[in-house]
Amino acid sequence: MSKPLILVTNDDGVTAPGIKMLVEIAQELGDVVVVAPDSPQSGMGHAITLNTPLRIHRTRAFPDIEAYECSGTPVDCVKLAKNIVTKDRKVDLCVSGINHGSNAAINIIYSGTLSAAMEASLEGIPSIGFSLLDYRYNADFSAARGHIKSIMVHVLKNGLVNGSLLNVNIPKLPSDQIKGIKLCRQANARWQESYAEAEDPRGQKYYWLTGSFVNNDPNKDTDVAALEAGYISVVPSHHDLTDYDALADDSLKALEEVHKS
Amino acid sequence: MSKPLILVTNDDGVTAPGIKMLVEIAQELGDVVVVAPDSPQSGMGHAITLNTPLRIHRTRAFPDIEAYECSGTPVDCVKLAKNIVTKDRKVDLCVSGINHGSNAAINIIYSGTLSAAMEASLEGIPSIGFSLLDYRYNADFSAARGHIKSIMVHVLKNGLVNGSLLNVNIPKLPSDQIKGIKLCRQANARWQESYAEAEDPRGQKYYWLTGSFVNNDPNKDTDVAALEAGYISVVPSHHDLTDYDALADDSLKALEEVHKS
Repeated sequence: MSKPLILVTNDDGVTAPGIKMLVEIAQELGDVVVVAPDSPQSGMGHAITLNTPLRIHRTRAFPDIEAYECSGTPVDCVKLAKNIVTKDRKVDLCVSGINHGSNAAINIIYSGTLSAAMEASLEGIPSIGFSLLDYRYNADFSAARGHIKSIMVHVLKNGLVNGSLLNVNIPKLPSDQIKGIKLCRQANARWQESYAEAEDPRGQKYYWLTGSFVNNDPNKDTDVAALEAGYISVVPSHHDLTDYDALADDSLKALEEVHKS
Repeated sequence: MSKPLILVTNDDGVTAPGIKMLVEIAQELGDVVVVAPDSPQSGMGHAITLNTPLRIHRTRAFPDIEAYECSGTPVDCVKLAKNIVTKDRKVDLCVSGINHGSNAAINIIYSGTLSAAMEASLEGIPSIGFSLLDYRYNADFSAARGHIKSIMVHVLKNGLVNGSLLNVNIPKLPSDQIKGIKLCRQANARWQESYAEAEDPRGQKYYWLTGSFVNNDPNKDTDVAALEAGYISVVPSHHDLTDYDALADDSLKALEEVHKS
């Protein structure tokens, strides 16, 4: 039986520590292709490059692996991987990350790491985004190695519901304190932003985004609650943004009547 | 009674024709503040600017209106509007657009126009993204003027379910052929991409994104179906990406057991 083909990407480029571990695990499970951005792309969300051309370059960042750097966003990387780099072979799994810092709750919509995974899911590729709740460059990605591999093995074996991806977040804990894996929903949490105001060397005012994470969701079935309890959170996620509760709400229905009279 | 405050933004900047009509309508309904990008930001999705400072400049693009151009993405514009420009006054409504081209179906996740509206909804501001299915610069935005105003009036009066926004798409039809407004869900459609390959003047290969829109969703309750039938589509949308069907799926549950043995 031929090996599965695994696409590895991220939003921080091929030199980021997090992608190294994903590549190592992926090599134990199948053939690996890496397509990652050639510059940091944190916070790029689902951005795509429309008005400029894209470049891809082979890189020697990983021994014995076909790896490329791309001039675009994480989503561009996945599109180029699918349509150019792996066009003659089906991709069986896409893994993105491991991101430095949480992509739980609302972070999924700002995250280049998770948007890359979502783009792969749109292309019909079972897909997982991994993030570790540790922003430091020298974060320890090894504690969850076994769990990460288990999740990848599970998805390779069972696939995912069509169009679904997994948003996996890992608590910043030593291996023996990680309690296990918890399936959960996205917490209804948000960022309370503020801007640092300052003047540049020419005396022009500028603003720099900062903020704090606020969780207003008291329930226990969320990713934020699972992480706080010491679990790895797994949120099956998709691209259907329809608010079905609002759609069923009577007050909106009146809109359909507005111009009928 | 004091007038409501309406924030107007888009992804194409203050000189785009689409924003002009939204500003005109907003002026009939309340006080207006404009904060829009200082360069085209199509396809920026929910990107935010983390690693560089942001600038905002007052612009005279609209007579008698407080208007600003921002160096960031559409989402940055909304964050700056909320936290800096309107910080002393509650924003009652945010309208984004009118975008040239459809943001129905999957386009919502790539769209700067809709991401700006979503960001406002995250800030607790009732919010609407408007798009016209006409890519031409000289597209006729006037046919749906009455409908656009009605939708804004409705949301100003009734608000929206908390955290919800409206994704409004307008068919490219003369006024008398628009059949009305239809509430619907996001179609399960996607882009079938391809890349144009070419060489730059220095002989280096490049790739440029192109593609065609594929609707695999045969149902009649979708935005794509409503638009094809001559209706203005309104999809209540939100930021919860949890795939609840997948969450209830038994095969995923096995993940929680993996490391328990």
